[in-house]
Amino acid sequence: MKYGIAIFPSKQLQDVANSLRKRYDTHYALIPPHITLKEAFNVEDSDLNNVVAEIKKIASKTTPFSLNVYKYSSFSPVSNTIYMGVKENEELLHLQKELNSGNLDQEEKYQFVPHITVGQDMDDDEFHDVLGRLRMETINHEEICDRFQLLYQLDNGSWTVYETFRLGGEA
Amino acid sequence: MKYGIAIFPSKQLQDVANSLRKRYDTHYALIPPHITLKEAFNVEDSDLNNVVAEIKKIASKTTPFSLNVYKYSSFSPVSNTIYMGVKENEELLHLQKELNSGNLDQEEKYQFVPHITVGQDMDDDEFHDVLGRLRMETINHEEICDRFQLLYQLDNGSWTVYETFRLGGEA
Repeated sequence: MKYGIAIFPSKQLQDVANSLRKRYDTHYALIPPHITLKEAFNVEDSDLNNVVAEIKKIASKTTPFSLNVYKYSSFSPVSNTIYMGVKENEELLHLQKELNSGNLDQEEKYQFVPHITVGQDMDDDEFHDVLGRLRMETINHEEICDRFQLLYQLDNGSWTVYETFRLGGEA
Repeated sequence: MKYGIAIFPSKQLQDVANSLRKRYDTHYALIPPHITLKEAFNVEDSDLNNVVAEIKKIASKTTPFSLNVYKYSSFSPVSNTIYMGVKENEELLHLQKELNSGNLDQEEKYQFVPHITVGQDMDDDEFHDVLGRLRMETINHEEICDRFQLLYQLDNGSWTVYETFRLGGEA
């Protein structure tokens, strides 16, 4: 089965993201606004408990950290994706790295850029129009991240949460 | 903020449910297929930790149980809702009762009928047509339920998982 790991930010931030995603993000209905920590990866049923234990170990060694959304940006020219940029910080980068190495090793196509996608698969005109508008907006939101989620993908492409992991090891 | 408690069944069962929900359920994009254990209820931010602790206590005292989906049925004439019926069992009924009493007391409009909604807000003709067809189908699916989820509702009506609770108290 296909799994992925993501952070869901606060309702407040998700509501802002969704006001854009509703119009500009083809994945709007498939998953709530999120920061991807680990791209889709396959886990055999027989291996799931080991994977969960490994993730839990990583979560327990990570302390809650500040999540700071500070700009709108894009992955142009690679893709017409618009996102809310999340400021890099050591704890977040370390967490992402741990979730993609060792027993959870996974080839990463791109360097990790923490972000919340708000638009994707847009045509060029709309992409430049929306990005230009958003770049003039000020965004500066800070909150504490104390958990992340392991999800699995359904046949329709949507994602269901399998388990929540609290940072710092609290269950 | 508005919270709710639900069980997400296995991917296998969710895929079957979604093949119907896609066409017949107006809530298809708002939440994955689920069994509601506690209807939407308000929690003040300041009270959230207490509520989570209470739920955790209940989860720890509940052992994993068998979830048996055995028929298609409806809430007609109360509403044109079609669902997959989940066989009642003591553990499930007890869990639902615990999550709606004591500190989590909540007035329940209807008696608890464990189910997975696959169609709602249908017009009369479609409702009778689809229900008639589904009632001739055989469904008998059994799986172990070992967890449930606390979710919160976003402004667009969709639900995000806040925390997973493992039955039997394993974190």
